[in-house]
Amino acid sequence: METIATNKSHGGTQGVYTHHSEETGTEMTFSVFVPPHETGAKLPVLWYLSGLTCTHENVTEKGEYRQACAEHGIIFVAPDTSPRGSDVPDAEDEFDFGKGAGFYLDASEEPWTKNYRMRSYIEDELPALIAEHFPADMDRQSIMGHSMGGLGALTIGLRNADRFRSVSAFSPIVAPVQAPWGEKAFSRYLGDNRDSWAEYDAVALIEGGARVDHMLVDQGTADDFFAEQLKTGLLALACKKAGIDAAIRMQEGYDHSYYFISTFMAEHVKWHAERLG
Amino acid sequence: METIATNKSHGGTQGVYTHHSEETGTEMTFSVFVPPHETGAKLPVLWYLSGLTCTHENVTEKGEYRQACAEHGIIFVAPDTSPRGSDVPDAEDEFDFGKGAGFYLDASEEPWTKNYRMRSYIEDELPALIAEHFPADMDRQSIMGHSMGGLGALTIGLRNADRFRSVSAFSPIVAPVQAPWGEKAFSRYLGDNRDSWAEYDAVALIEGGARVDHMLVDQGTADDFFAEQLKTGLLALACKKAGIDAAIRMQEGYDHSYYFISTFMAEHVKWHAERLG
Repeated sequence: METIATNKSHGGTQGVYTHHSEETGTEMTFSVFVPPHETGAKLPVLWYLSGLTCTHENVTEKGEYRQACAEHGIIFVAPDTSPRGSDVPDAEDEFDFGKGAGFYLDASEEPWTKNYRMRSYIEDELPALIAEHFPADMDRQSIMGHSMGGLGALTIGLRNADRFRSVSAFSPIVAPVQAPWGEKAFSRYLGDNRDSWAEYDAVALIEGGARVDHMLVDQGTADDFFAEQLKTGLLALACKKAGIDAAIRMQEGYDHSYYFISTFMAEHVKWHAERLG
Repeated sequence: METIATNKSHGGTQGVYTHHSEETGTEMTFSVFVPPHETGAKLPVLWYLSGLTCTHENVTEKGEYRQACAEHGIIFVAPDTSPRGSDVPDAEDEFDFGKGAGFYLDASEEPWTKNYRMRSYIEDELPALIAEHFPADMDRQSIMGHSMGGLGALTIGLRNADRFRSVSAFSPIVAPVQAPWGEKAFSRYLGDNRDSWAEYDAVALIEGGARVDHMLVDQGTADDFFAEQLKTGLLALACKKAGIDAAIRMQEGYDHSYYFISTFMAEHVKWHAERLG
């Protein structure tokens, strides 16, 4: 792991790091905020997965999470959204597929299988690196995300309920198998067998029996993607049927941007902190 | 005035606007955050002047001011740092002169006189526009800034002590006539007569008798520009001699970036709020 930059912020250290990923076969860049802490302390970890077109930079610059993470003593990890590099196959001019649109899955179709392994990268490889290099208590993890990253947080959280104490999302895609972004990406990354899509769909996972203990979702009513792509109502319905303790909140007048995310970020961090102990 | 974008954030409205400036002869873009407020209310205004290379965007995205402005009911205005456009003379490849480096002065030398009128733009033209289009109480204004914008805030505040109740800065250039950035910019914008430089130099203004009632400055000890360009100590000395109530604080380990600014932004906003009533 190589350090690209560190800056003191809110009493802690905001860093950007890069490493060679075995999973994606590429250099991967991510950011980590480590709050002020006692020497030798082990701190809980909050994962933040970003949305389409994003890198680690968007939330690192615009997310307004450091004050709350410093206050609650939480490490905040922000990975990239896909493999990068000139050797990585891409769909040029498509913002919703290829680079910047990894959908946190392991691709099964060519030419995507070699590099597009964001599920294994986020679930296995990066946690091991975080555990090795940062003062992280890996027994205390929670996960959150935005839009495609909200889907990532929900699905990774649902598939690993023993690892993540709480799951939250801003404007998540909740049912990609029923929405254009998801249908496009899954058919190309995963192929035509829709049965294989279910493990990357939050609503399908819940309908299949997956559960999380604590879920918080904020969705803006002025979000242009709400009706066609995000379909928050399907998640609310699935949680209700499944008896999942989910706070799914419609936020009046807010859109899909970081102006929305940053408004409720401190509240999400505090909510996770209460469950991370 | 034309609205480029508005986004709901922290209960208020973050907007970006453009207008034709008579002073600079160009289209000028700026951002305004209006916090949640009662219909008909008039709110105090906090000006934020940005540093070299910046536009309104840097602080708007990375400044983390909205939560505090919402809490204290303050309008936050972030102008650009220079005129823009293909017709505006520039010094290509020089980040510290020309576009992005207006130094909040009215140029007296050619070819800069026509467009480089950021002093008059910030002191006169933009305040009139703000008063016309926003719920602003122009009898309650304060001003702050970063680096070159910290210089702008200090000098504009010192020259207009009757207008601004308080002045604060992050890592300001305090004595440009004694520093390379200032010497370079002033000699080309203002010519060789150094007497004309003094009104754009905070230390010289104080030595010449200018005063402000309340001053707050934060300077990071890990700021690469501290010793050669910023020279905070000269401001502390001038304030002490002049009997100005100035809190000039060295912040251990912080650098020149927005990771530093955002750390202390809420504290600055609160400090201004207490003086804005």
